[in-house]
Amino acid sequence: MKLEKLVGDRFKERPADCAIDSHALMIRGGYIKYVASGIYSSYPVLRRITRKIEHIIREEMDAVDGQEVLFPMALPASLWQESGRYDAVGSAMARFRDRNDNMMLLGPTHEEAAVHLVREYGQSYTKYPFMIYQINTKFRDEPRSRGGLIRVREFSMKDAYSFHISQKDLKEYFMRCHRAYERIYSRVGLPQVFSVDSDSGMMGGSMSKEFMLLTPIGEDSIVTCKSCDYRANMEAAESIVINEKTETEKPLNKVHTPNMKTIEDVCVFLNMPIEKSCKAVVYQKNATDEYVVVFIRGDLDINEIKLENYLHEEIHPADITEESEMSAGFIGPCKLNGVNVLLFDKSLSGIENLCCGANETDYHYTGFSIERDIGHVVYHDFAKAVEGGVCPHCKNPSLSISRGVEVGHIFQLDTRYTKSMKMSYLDENGNSHYPLMCCYGIGIGRLAASVCEIHHDENGPIWPFSIAPWHVHLCCIRADDAQTKEFSDKLYEQLQAKNIEVLYDDRIVSAGVMLADADLLGVPLRVIASPRNMKDNCCEIVSRDKSVNLKVKTDEVIAAITELLMKAK
Amino acid sequence: MKLEKLVGDRFKERPADCAIDSHALMIRGGYIKYVASGIYSSYPVLRRITRKIEHIIREEMDAVDGQEVLFPMALPASLWQESGRYDAVGSAMARFRDRNDNMMLLGPTHEEAAVHLVREYGQSYTKYPFMIYQINTKFRDEPRSRGGLIRVREFSMKDAYSFHISQKDLKEYFMRCHRAYERIYSRVGLPQVFSVDSDSGMMGGSMSKEFMLLTPIGEDSIVTCKSCDYRANMEAAESIVINEKTETEKPLNKVHTPNMKTIEDVCVFLNMPIEKSCKAVVYQKNATDEYVVVFIRGDLDINEIKLENYLHEEIHPADITEESEMSAGFIGPCKLNGVNVLLFDKSLSGIENLCCGANETDYHYTGFSIERDIGHVVYHDFAKAVEGGVCPHCKNPSLSISRGVEVGHIFQLDTRYTKSMKMSYLDENGNSHYPLMCCYGIGIGRLAASVCEIHHDENGPIWPFSIAPWHVHLCCIRADDAQTKEFSDKLYEQLQAKNIEVLYDDRIVSAGVMLADADLLGVPLRVIASPRNMKDNCCEIVSRDKSVNLKVKTDEVIAAITELLMKAK
Repeated sequence: MKLEKLVGDRFKERPADCAIDSHALMIRGGYIKYVASGIYSSYPVLRRITRKIEHIIREEMDAVDGQEVLFPMALPASLWQESGRYDAVGSAMARFRDRNDNMMLLGPTHEEAAVHLVREYGQSYTKYPFMIYQINTKFRDEPRSRGGLIRVREFSMKDAYSFHISQKDLKEYFMRCHRAYERIYSRVGLPQVFSVDSDSGMMGGSMSKEFMLLTPIGEDSIVTCKSCDYRANMEAAESIVINEKTETEKPLNKVHTPNMKTIEDVCVFLNMPIEKSCKAVVYQKNATDEYVVVFIRGDLDINEIKLENYLHEEIHPADITEESEMSAGFIGPCKLNGVNVLLFDKSLSGIENLCCGANETDYHYTGFSIERDIGHVVYHDFAKAVEGGVCPHCKNPSLSISRGVEVGHIFQLDTRYTKSMKMSYLDENGNSHYPLMCCYGIGIGRLAASVCEIHHDENGPIWPFSIAPWHVHLCCIRADDAQTKEFSDKLYEQLQAKNIEVLYDDRIVSAGVMLADADLLGVPLRVIASPRNMKDNCCEIVSRDKSVNLKVKTDEVIAAITELLMKAK
Repeated sequence: MKLEKLVGDRFKERPADCAIDSHALMIRGGYIKYVASGIYSSYPVLRRITRKIEHIIREEMDAVDGQEVLFPMALPASLWQESGRYDAVGSAMARFRDRNDNMMLLGPTHEEAAVHLVREYGQSYTKYPFMIYQINTKFRDEPRSRGGLIRVREFSMKDAYSFHISQKDLKEYFMRCHRAYERIYSRVGLPQVFSVDSDSGMMGGSMSKEFMLLTPIGEDSIVTCKSCDYRANMEAAESIVINEKTETEKPLNKVHTPNMKTIEDVCVFLNMPIEKSCKAVVYQKNATDEYVVVFIRGDLDINEIKLENYLHEEIHPADITEESEMSAGFIGPCKLNGVNVLLFDKSLSGIENLCCGANETDYHYTGFSIERDIGHVVYHDFAKAVEGGVCPHCKNPSLSISRGVEVGHIFQLDTRYTKSMKMSYLDENGNSHYPLMCCYGIGIGRLAASVCEIHHDENGPIWPFSIAPWHVHLCCIRADDAQTKEFSDKLYEQLQAKNIEVLYDDRIVSAGVMLADADLLGVPLRVIASPRNMKDNCCEIVSRDKSVNLKVKTDEVIAAITELLMKAK
């Protein structure tokens, strides 16, 4: 098509409110338009890209025997009440009442709808395994939408659901889909995406894998091991702390620590290493505001998802009131009153002579040893893994923490939904069972933004051939020059006749404007015709990633383009 | 693919709650699953069909220079407050509050979103004309969802929006899109669809055309003329009544009509033709419950849409209370107290010696002549057109009323949205104007159901080749027979190798079950291999519409299929 007809504006200036490059470039290049927090419209350029991504995803889903279906976006609450998630999922789900006052919701995910669709179909073991998928709009009322398409509230998603009658089949198929996901990332230009062990969150089930793209703009923390192939996200990474007994126990001793409210201050004041401190972190349950106090070694931090998963409740950082009987800043495990939920992180196991709060303003204890001073406690893993921490697999102190974007998430749900929603099948002996289930999600817009984040320079995206909006960008510099225009017009026709996806810029604008626009549109191959080139009977072929820069005779240009496109495929 | 892996069940029995054939066949054939009133999931067979429809629509929209975009389904109320529709559209729009208590809605249509997307882009006259479209989910909280996919609440829709700077360009492009629509209907197998003048309803604008498929299951009434090419839907069809003056005026006379509460009863009792009666029809405004009384000739009915358009308000049939001062059943134009909105249909113009209610229980007047007895009144068109009525175009009494399904609706919106949402452009002289706008809608699921409604027999749908889920249905009757199975397997492979879309049924089931399933799936060409055929070195090729019924030598079957498919394309 002709660039002058392309709907969408392009800008030179980086918008002030864009923290990340893909967001800025998608605004500057006329890819997206902000409608409301986390809600965007797509301009034609982006829609061309997302349609190509959808096509790749469909091919890979079909290749693993997926069958495309379509679920409703608006679902009756009753379906989610069956699974028990209607009340469990909080404000991330949009709800409304229809004209007959029925409770409805916008499906943030579609496990319930999937089970509902195949509940009758899957009544015999002969029907298994099978997989269904859709590409459709989802709405999740995220509290922190950010970064353009990286985290939004409304998005297009491919979600797939597979059903099995044995764990062996489930695990084999899960790995087959895992490989299909790897092919998808590779095909869209992100072969570096890898999977990590992950927390399953509101989905439930036995295990899940997140597909991660390492990038500084990521909001997820990913734990990898430099010595082995261990990979997990922060929520799923076990924190291993080895405390070696090196000292003899000293007596418990109350010391005056005036105005020392952080564990760091106290340790400096008492001249103790922070690894010898017992820090209190206080939360409240969202539902009841009941206090939850977690003790952890002073140098470590709590992972709140691990804590929520342990509690099976949502929590928030505590507001410690005067009625609470707690002395904020001086909370310790000895004689702590008014708190029912007291938890200990594993990092405090096997350690003696700690300093800790004395539950009295301006006082701490030293010489605190848990078992001796308060008796036997059960330790759990609530700590965030740390750089240089011990790997749960190889046990070497070689963990590394990186930032990443989650670009896919697949779950082994087992009977989480089939059991609650009473989907069952009869085996060959007539016995009834609940089928096993997996689900597999991938967000289309976030994937496009992630590709942009990895493949761009300061002037615009550098789209991989597989998802580029067009394959060739034809620039007619000086369209007011008759010879150049005539050559370009003819070339445009010839490329179209060869079914080559070509964007043709024959506007009468400066070369600078024309090339800046081409950079923002990121088409892989650029053909430049200009009066100067015409004099030499040539035109230029340049690739957006700068790996190709050719001067080609005008009568050889079609052949050269065709060859370059063949290579790119 | 193999039929035994196809997700979805097929049934022999017609479900009791299906009033129309396409609904029954789509349930029986495993096309759709009911989720909630007017909300369905699509099984893989239907999704294959709708994807083909989407492909045809995209081709035709691209052919008229459309550019595909994507609008959000969840929109901020503020966008609809800009256009003034947030309050004007009633309970048909689903609304919700997001986690930050912002008012949101599910877009039942996307004029506001379209203007929002291009408001900055369209600031110069040089950008015009342009057209953007999307294919996306819509939710309309219809009070009367019915008939499977014919009228639903959630559906996938192609909606397009064009922008123009002159009425001439708008009208030319509108006709170009009109022709694109005709091609779409023709390509999906409904060449008989035609357009009618229509009421624009909540969309506003200057005129609209509905595309109608005539079928007894339709819920729309379509007015056509047997003498000319006049076509309109009931809401848009002008009712023309010619009252010829034949009598001299008689005096007004109050007569006792005990318990005669309908105009039919009164006319029989008084031995008068019903065309000589003045009937009162009473409504109330939805917003205020204020009464609206419309007088109309006794043989005609009110079209409520016409009345609402006149009032610019929604109405409902009245509940006439005792406080109203009206005598229900005896309401007439003379000395009617307590009613502010009194309207007269054109059918009462130029007629004398009417009978009408006397506003007194058990009494009517005869000899009523409007101008003489109550003075000058203004007449409006509120009446439904009738079979044999006068055509507004050719003036012959040759109107015909048919039932139809609306399968598309296109609107000339003019500046209805650009003006209210302050979208403007500068012309070549630097003067500011509001661009003109059209919109074009077509529901994907309703179109699929309409094709099924027209193309089916008692055993199942007969899908046109262009949107058929597969092109060839290969039936291996007696898959337990080695020779038949071997032949069929090989044919399946060969057809796949030729990129022919083939559904292969090699289940060990009876021929009856196999052929009944094939009928329900409606694939255009059927190839039947059976031990009996194998003996003759033959197989059968039968078309679903029964126009083809061949016995073909086994080594000629691929060639025969290829030829038939070529013809079908």
